[in-house]
Amino acid sequence: MAEAATQTMSQRSLERATMRRALELAASPDAPLWPNPRVGCVLLAPDGSILAEGHHRGAGTPHAEADALALAGSAARGATAVVTLEPCNHTGRTGPCSEALIAAGVRRVVHAQADPNPVAAGGAERLRAAGVEVEGGLLADEARALNAVWTRATELQRPFVTWKFASTLDGRSAAADGSSRWVSSTAARRDTHRLRALADTMLVGTNTVAVDDPELTVRDERDRPVGVQPLRVVMGLRDLPTGKRVFNDRAETLHLRTRDPHQALKELWVRDRRHVFLEGGPTLAAAFLRAGLVDEIVAYVAPMLLGSGRNAVADLGIATIGDALRPTVADVTVLPGVDGEEPNVRLTMTPSTIEGDR
Amino acid sequence: MAEAATQTMSQRSLERATMRRALELAASPDAPLWPNPRVGCVLLAPDGSILAEGHHRGAGTPHAEADALALAGSAARGATAVVTLEPCNHTGRTGPCSEALIAAGVRRVVHAQADPNPVAAGGAERLRAAGVEVEGGLLADEARALNAVWTRATELQRPFVTWKFASTLDGRSAAADGSSRWVSSTAARRDTHRLRALADTMLVGTNTVAVDDPELTVRDERDRPVGVQPLRVVMGLRDLPTGKRVFNDRAETLHLRTRDPHQALKELWVRDRRHVFLEGGPTLAAAFLRAGLVDEIVAYVAPMLLGSGRNAVADLGIATIGDALRPTVADVTVLPGVDGEEPNVRLTMTPSTIEGDR
Ligand SMILES: NC(=O)c1ccc[n+]([C@@H]2O[C@H](COP(=O)([O-])OP(=O)(O)OC[C@H]3O[C@@H](n4cnc5c(N)ncnc54)[C@H](OP(=O)(O)O)[C@@H]3O)[C@@H](O)[C@H]2O)c1
Ligand SMILES: NC(=O)c1ccc[n+]([C@@H]2O[C@H](COP(=O)([O-])OP(=O)(O)OC[C@H]3O[C@@H](n4cnc5c(N)ncnc54)[C@H](OP(=O)(O)O)[C@@H]3O)[C@@H](O)[C@H]2O)c1
Repeated sequence: MAEAATQTMSQRSLERATMRRALELAASPDAPLWPNPRVGCVLLAPDGSILAEGHHRGAGTPHAEADALALAGSAARGATAVVTLEPCNHTGRTGPCSEALIAAGVRRVVHAQADPNPVAAGGAERLRAAGVEVEGGLLADEARALNAVWTRATELQRPFVTWKFASTLDGRSAAADGSSRWVSSTAARRDTHRLRALADTMLVGTNTVAVDDPELTVRDERDRPVGVQPLRVVMGLRDLPTGKRVFNDRAETLHLRTRDPHQALKELWVRDRRHVFLEGGPTLAAAFLRAGLVDEIVAYVAPMLLGSGRNAVADLGIATIGDALRPTVADVTVLPGVDGEEPNVRLTMTPSTIEGDR
Repeated sequence: MAEAATQTMSQRSLERATMRRALELAASPDAPLWPNPRVGCVLLAPDGSILAEGHHRGAGTPHAEADALALAGSAARGATAVVTLEPCNHTGRTGPCSEALIAAGVRRVVHAQADPNPVAAGGAERLRAAGVEVEGGLLADEARALNAVWTRATELQRPFVTWKFASTLDGRSAAADGSSRWVSSTAARRDTHRLRALADTMLVGTNTVAVDDPELTVRDERDRPVGVQPLRVVMGLRDLPTGKRVFNDRAETLHLRTRDPHQALKELWVRDRRHVFLEGGPTLAAAFLRAGLVDEIVAYVAPMLLGSGRNAVADLGIATIGDALRPTVADVTVLPGVDGEEPNVRLTMTPSTIEGDR
């Protein structure tokens, strides 16, 4: 009895340490952020030694479980699979992992995060039905944090939307004559490129393209495009001159001829888009806010006063102070000015109207 | 020669230590902020021992030098006076300190800050003419910092103006229906009362009184008036109902029937006002900004979005982004929310248009 308890304790701490290793594998540098989650898997022999390690390297490549099983071969019989995400139960570009684990003779599966997919979950259930021991929830918060935006998007079954805006202290995003270069500091603009690189989609309204002609690429400090470029999306009914920079060959571009935010996100979802970085303008931002389709707000406040010009967000249909949108503040960071510029303040927030616990 | 150098060194370090003591005396709790500067004085005997200490306790009471001289009596003959501000040379409610020091037979005067008064300075010159050794500038920055706002006001020969405003992230200071209670958090409002208590004058436009009916007093956490109340000033031509709270008996109130910011500050200056705390509204703030009469800006940014309503500042005549007011940021502080409220961000700034080195 005492021995069994000790054994259980040591099994628990072994599996916990192994899950930490699986989380490390999930975050491997060759694991892309989109459109799939980053997942790691470790196979343990009955004596607790490591049989094989695996991780997912992006859409179309084997899932983490399959990656590890291929390495272990027949040694997987009787093994324990420690995996950061509940094994999938659906046939996508690869077969379901639940079936692969069963076929390999795995005895026990310990997973961290449960499958957030409200329609396609069921891997644990399938495994249990086949007689495999399943335990979920080990280091689940860490696993969820690793794929926070993907998780939320999967739960919502639409892309996660980050709305970024830059404004003066009096809330202007452009001066009276329409000029807006630059409201934010060099440091804030660099920070924006860092955040763009975390998303898979850039989104603006047709008028921002017409007025500002932005390129909407991720660029380095010397203004050269870097890394995998997000898809550039322009939303709105009007035709746009093909000479606009958003249509150059530095990234792909999509003109969504709709004014319906729900419709736009649906079209992006079927194109495997998971994280939309909405950069304005005020009209499009207001449309998404009114539709309750903003999941995160990143505001750069510049210590400037204009006294006139465009406000950072258009009419939200709010008449009185009690009805103001009051997002929850996750972070406030002062971005020091470089080259004699003044500091800017970045606020990262979660809209109060959007429920959810990411 | 070596001995003389040592003596000079030790005299220097003695006088420096004594100046630190004089700065402490200046900041005594019974030294009011307004309308005079806070000044401390120490009299040193030829052997370096302290003869007497003095400080100024407010308008109509003896200056720091006179305070110390009265204690020292005839022992002041041959002494060194260490004083945080250049001795005055004009007859106000008390006689000039330069004459008092000469009459007492003081041999040497060491002062920190030079008299910032562009019209009434000359104390050091008068002392030198009478054969007194004078050395200025010892710990001058510290002394200036002790009376920073008074110093700047004296240099400008008008009250120093702090403009405080609270706005949402999209720059609104009130909602579409005019409601503005509250844009800022409880913590930000408490912080505002702390800053009000540092000024001697509250200033608003007639419309803020008409719309918001603020009391404009300094109050504690339980909303009870505390300390010496600043003068309440309402500026604008229209008549106001006497029933407005700004006219209650909790503080004095002045209705300045002018729209000219220069004229208003002139009238307040002759009433011995040194630090005006301008709390709006947007129209009056814009008038002061356009006149170049704002010396400090304190902005409270609330993580809220309104999408419509009044902007924090009215038209400044700025058409293009290159002409934006770009104040220098002195401080950014996050004020944590209390009782479940969100944090607010306070930015303290010096307008770029206003030259000066406080
Ligand atoms: N400071 C910043 O962070 C920032 C960022 C971006 C832009 N800006 C500034 O913002 C200005 C442009 O903003 P904007 O508000 O005029 O343009 P916008 O939001 O970029 O585009 C508005 C256009 O989007 C289309 N649209 C798509 N969905 C819509 C919907 N649900 N409701 C309404 N319209 C929809 C409409 O065009 P169709 O007629 O084609 O349908 C509409 O005219 C520029 O001055 C730019 O400098 C500032
Ligand atoms: N969030 C905040 O920090 C804050 C602070 C204060 C007020 N508010 C909000 O601001 C609103 C009131 O602001 P407001 O801009 O309407 O009123 P205001 O600035 O308080 O007063 C404007 C009035 O001041 C007089 N005035 C004096 N000098 C002037 C000048 N040089 N130029 C123009 N007018 C001058 C004029 O009235 P006469 O016709 O009498 O001459 C003018 O109508 C309220 O909704 C209030 O809630 C917000």
